[in-house]
Amino acid sequence: MISGKNQVGSQLTANGAKTYKTFDPILNQENPWVFTEASNEEISKATALANKAFPIYQNFSAIERSAFLNTIADEILHLGEALIDVYCMESGLTRGRAEIERGRTIFQLRSFADAILHGQYLEATIDTAQPERLPNPRIDIRKMMIPIGPIVVFGSSNFPFAYSTAGGDTASALAAGCPVIVKSHPMHAGTSEMVAKAVTEAAQKTGMPEGVFSNLNSSGIEVGIQLVNDPLVKAIGFTGSIKGGRAIYDAAAKRPEPIPVFAEMGSVNPVVLLPKALNNESGKWANAISGSITLGTGQFCTNPGLVFGIESDALSEFSDQLASEILKVVPSSMLHPTIHKNYTHNKEKLKGQSHVEVIAENGDTLQANYANQTVLKISSKTFLENKTLHQEVFGPFSMLVTCKDNLELERCLGSMEGQLTGTIIGEVDELEKHKNLIEILRNRVGRIVFNGVPTGVEVCNAMLHGGPYPASTDSRFTAVGVHAIKRWLRPISYQNWPNALLPDALKNENPLKILRLVNSQTTLSPII
Amino acid sequence: MISGKNQVGSQLTANGAKTYKTFDPILNQENPWVFTEASNEEISKATALANKAFPIYQNFSAIERSAFLNTIADEILHLGEALIDVYCMESGLTRGRAEIERGRTIFQLRSFADAILHGQYLEATIDTAQPERLPNPRIDIRKMMIPIGPIVVFGSSNFPFAYSTAGGDTASALAAGCPVIVKSHPMHAGTSEMVAKAVTEAAQKTGMPEGVFSNLNSSGIEVGIQLVNDPLVKAIGFTGSIKGGRAIYDAAAKRPEPIPVFAEMGSVNPVVLLPKALNNESGKWANAISGSITLGTGQFCTNPGLVFGIESDALSEFSDQLASEILKVVPSSMLHPTIHKNYTHNKEKLKGQSHVEVIAENGDTLQANYANQTVLKISSKTFLENKTLHQEVFGPFSMLVTCKDNLELERCLGSMEGQLTGTIIGEVDELEKHKNLIEILRNRVGRIVFNGVPTGVEVCNAMLHGGPYPASTDSRFTAVGVHAIKRWLRPISYQNWPNALLPDALKNENPLKILRLVNSQTTLSPII
Repeated sequence: MISGKNQVGSQLTANGAKTYKTFDPILNQENPWVFTEASNEEISKATALANKAFPIYQNFSAIERSAFLNTIADEILHLGEALIDVYCMESGLTRGRAEIERGRTIFQLRSFADAILHGQYLEATIDTAQPERLPNPRIDIRKMMIPIGPIVVFGSSNFPFAYSTAGGDTASALAAGCPVIVKSHPMHAGTSEMVAKAVTEAAQKTGMPEGVFSNLNSSGIEVGIQLVNDPLVKAIGFTGSIKGGRAIYDAAAKRPEPIPVFAEMGSVNPVVLLPKALNNESGKWANAISGSITLGTGQFCTNPGLVFGIESDALSEFSDQLASEILKVVPSSMLHPTIHKNYTHNKEKLKGQSHVEVIAENGDTLQANYANQTVLKISSKTFLENKTLHQEVFGPFSMLVTCKDNLELERCLGSMEGQLTGTIIGEVDELEKHKNLIEILRNRVGRIVFNGVPTGVEVCNAMLHGGPYPASTDSRFTAVGVHAIKRWLRPISYQNWPNALLPDALKNENPLKILRLVNSQTTLSPII
Repeated sequence: MISGKNQVGSQLTANGAKTYKTFDPILNQENPWVFTEASNEEISKATALANKAFPIYQNFSAIERSAFLNTIADEILHLGEALIDVYCMESGLTRGRAEIERGRTIFQLRSFADAILHGQYLEATIDTAQPERLPNPRIDIRKMMIPIGPIVVFGSSNFPFAYSTAGGDTASALAAGCPVIVKSHPMHAGTSEMVAKAVTEAAQKTGMPEGVFSNLNSSGIEVGIQLVNDPLVKAIGFTGSIKGGRAIYDAAAKRPEPIPVFAEMGSVNPVVLLPKALNNESGKWANAISGSITLGTGQFCTNPGLVFGIESDALSEFSDQLASEILKVVPSSMLHPTIHKNYTHNKEKLKGQSHVEVIAENGDTLQANYANQTVLKISSKTFLENKTLHQEVFGPFSMLVTCKDNLELERCLGSMEGQLTGTIIGEVDELEKHKNLIEILRNRVGRIVFNGVPTGVEVCNAMLHGGPYPASTDSRFTAVGVHAIKRWLRPISYQNWPNALLPDALKNENPLKILRLVNSQTTLSPII
């Protein structure tokens, strides 16, 4: 069923010399399939096909692209249990998680399929001529969004479906009208091949041009770097580590023609516990935060890696409760031995810093690749003095920072780099007393949460998944939700263009029946 | 009246050691004022003040920021003729041009002042809670745009008002809620100081925080590089050469925290003449294009540097007409001896290439710094073989490319880098026969013009002034028009946030009465 080959447009090929296997972390053994890394020629062929497909694909109607996206969703579902099997074998994640993530992936595809039909993403803007204006007449000018060109998507390690082959980046780019070349994550090459087959079949069934989609295997960084440097590639989507994302960003910025990189990278997602909430509901929050820390073996980018509170008896009690709650959690497997090794290494590095107390650490001797969940405790003074303690530990890990007072808490938050999320747990009247603290947090995060946990990223219009660097390389865009399509579009103006030859979105008659900004008024009305 | 000092917040200081003067290109002599380049300490003080002002200024209401912008416009007008005098002495441009450009600058300031009152720039997006949703309830999520932080604006050489101290970049950044530090252009230090005084007085009159605006002198690249590398600076606006823009882009990309750079750079702005238009109206277009080439001594980024046509008797006739028209133009001064020197150097470089014919060149011995307007002619074969001929010559210069046939014309356009504009001159029925050509042009430009000239950039919603690299470093944003504000904003999501503590733009009651996207519907209605 799995060939180990690269999907280069409609062809499955394996011309390269380098082979590799994926790994089952639960069985602690290699999976049976042999994957062939994409050769230089296969990479160039994929980008050349995408470049050739681009002028054709960008002119397909929203209805046609929508049908393509919905058919991808159908084809993924048609793969049935076989796909779930491979997902689990390549990730160590549970079948339940696999099914939920598949559902999310299908929902994303259908959300973009639906959104492009409404045409809001086109941002159609029209300023009609004013021939009588003095001293100079105004000429008719109309603006809309068009796709930017072939996109490369790097599959993530921690979302083999939802942020990989046909995940949010691919779905949004295809919706925008951009061909996509996926570089599959080495850990999930089989999952990616199967999903790529679904995408390819959908492309054929719906009459999409050859090269609208390719999926390339890689075992190291070479395939990715060649793709980033290919002049036919016009933007990059990436989900992963700061180190990986920054390397891609740097390579893209050094090109003769620099291109945008949307890398969603690291975050420690600070959670702030305000005094009243601690006094009244510390047990409830210890339970919720413990669940958020250990969800998916802590392998979420929104994992709460730092919890702040002001020194008090209630905070001490919370500390005990969190330790107790987290030790109740049954350890589970990480995605891969390398990820497990990094988890242990990074955790030990933090444990080894001065003035660090371990308040909970699962002490069981575990099966290979399973993670011992851990919570450390430090003072705000230690946090402020030691930047090593600001680093993300990817896994079921968190650190409680006890602050001397509110000012010290503000200083801690103010010392932090950009974050995907910031969370405040408190009572409503407490928030009003902490406006400065909220302001400090707001200017550092992409999403600010009240009385909740940061894990769980809703796919909707109002979601911002991203944030100031290093949470992402471009804080002005979201990686999740319908507005993720904005990453792959650029505006163009048509000046004095004949109505009949304008794109439908800009024609006087408004044939697409979309909301447009006409002479500064938002309207559905045609121009008479 | 001109002190030669730096405007560091509300203070005029001159602590640096390096001094310089501006130059009057008409009189071919230095102007009398001595400017002191900003010292390292003054630069750091300006960014520190801006950083301190940011949390205060971003929370001022749109009404307050709008008043600030309108007062800047008033204060600029209050400077009266004295400002126009200095503008002319530092640029060699005419009083008429100075007044038009001042008018444009005032219009820009008032446009942004007006636009922020409507609140569309906030892009308020709300997805309300669905507690009954299965399998998980949906939590209330609301998203809006917030300013990104202190901005540095590099004053341009060719627009001493409109793309300098209180020009489009500054006006849009202040409108967005970002403090601004201007690095004035060395050629226009006096003009910049006077405008900076107007901005500073407006800030004081309207109660803006200290540090919301500074204006720093520089004679070389050092001040700019220190500003780009300052960790408190969060984005850059630049208008100028590819070399300058790319250097700033590269420095910003190498920072520990990379920041966005909006550099509007070079463009040769291809104009395509279709056969029927040539047959029927070649004289009219020769006149119009000649005017566009020589407008403002050719010192516009939208100057038409390349004109394409298909070989024919009509094209030969157009060639003669263009040569004749352009020789009728009375030569005028360039902005500065350096710009004049570069013009001559770059023009001679192109004249010196193989198979280049000079069809028109003003042969008069001119006053120093005046430019001899020039038009060259080459074949499409020569254009395709020699990339040197794709380079911009900044000044009253253009090149006619005669193409063997339509395919060769398409190949020429397809070989070009990104452009601010592309223009097609033809009859409507001709356009329909040239869909492929239009498609090729469209994917390379920010604005596509029919039957017009590229110079003249309207300040309106539908304007896109920018384009694929190297026209700009970020094709997804415009430098002109109300949407230029988008460069200085980023989205943030509020999750489960108490209504009373949400920003006004996101409150249930919609107190700002702005259009919002609520549960995928665009509406003015409050949420009940």
